[in-house]
Amino acid sequence: MSMSMVHPSVHPIEAPPLTDHAIAIPRHTLKDTQGMPGTLGGFLLRFLQFSFAIVSLSVMASTSDFPSVTAFRYLVAAVSLQSLWSLSLAVADIYAILVRRGYRNIRVVRLFSIGDGITSTLTFSAACASAGITVLIGNDLNDCAQNHCSRFETATAMAFMSWFAASPSFILNFWSLASK
Amino acid sequence: MSMSMVHPSVHPIEAPPLTDHAIAIPRHTLKDTQGMPGTLGGFLLRFLQFSFAIVSLSVMASTSDFPSVTAFRYLVAAVSLQSLWSLSLAVADIYAILVRRGYRNIRVVRLFSIGDGITSTLTFSAACASAGITVLIGNDLNDCAQNHCSRFETATAMAFMSWFAASPSFILNFWSLASK
Repeated sequence: MSMSMVHPSVHPIEAPPLTDHAIAIPRHTLKDTQGMPGTLGGFLLRFLQFSFAIVSLSVMASTSDFPSVTAFRYLVAAVSLQSLWSLSLAVADIYAILVRRGYRNIRVVRLFSIGDGITSTLTFSAACASAGITVLIGNDLNDCAQNHCSRFETATAMAFMSWFAASPSFILNFWSLASK
Repeated sequence: MSMSMVHPSVHPIEAPPLTDHAIAIPRHTLKDTQGMPGTLGGFLLRFLQFSFAIVSLSVMASTSDFPSVTAFRYLVAAVSLQSLWSLSLAVADIYAILVRRGYRNIRVVRLFSIGDGITSTLTFSAACASAGITVLIGNDLNDCAQNHCSRFETATAMAFMSWFAASPSFILNFWSLASK
């Protein structure tokens, strides 16, 4: 047949691997980097964000007097939102890994990027406010005897760790959006 | 001459304007957007950042008891750094506007972007920590009679405004780096 002359059946480089079902859409696609949504690195980042946020939430909620300080109530709200957001995206990453497709659509990555930006900014601001209060109680007032200083410090540190794990997700998504 | 046939002397569209001395370097150049370093928008952003930071610094330093709270000392340090950084880049912008050249070099924009990221993160964290303390004094403890609540609030608000003016600079530089 003449067709086989024009399109030979042997493509040693361009042939798609048999185990990979992913079909790249030609327009509006993004490169697949570890840490991006739908990759194992991305799932690990989400898992870390979720774990640190949930530990921060539990430790802060275990103190009886956190509702008396506005910054600690704000921290509880912020890490709750962060843990819900990270859990949702961790589930989305697991799904993407199982069906072997990445999130390469511009609109989806833009949504993830905006959500990451909002939740990580909230978590960071709450962690900073709590750190200000914790340092005030512990160092400036020397009033740790009456307060749960170590629990406040642990919750604040875990919120900072959650923000630290959320930053790569945001920066990667933002960078891939800009360099589309 | 045959040269004038190949390169005619009349270029109605591509001719460089006589008043503009800027020569675009072909490789490693960036687009000129308002708000980027070297533009009037960029200078206005730097001026706003510097003004808000210096007002925040002055108001906080005018209170006699700010050194007793760690978060307020940190705010003074952060807005000092922010005002120095913004002043330097405002001067650089004025120079670029006067000689009519933009900062299109990748390395310079990367340096500006990293500096913006560091100073704006420091200013934001200091503003959040101060806001936590201010809300603690004003709302949770109701102790405004003994403290300079309004000055603390003004300094915190000005630091937030300075961060708000610094964000567009950082996002524009980061975006133009990624989409180079």
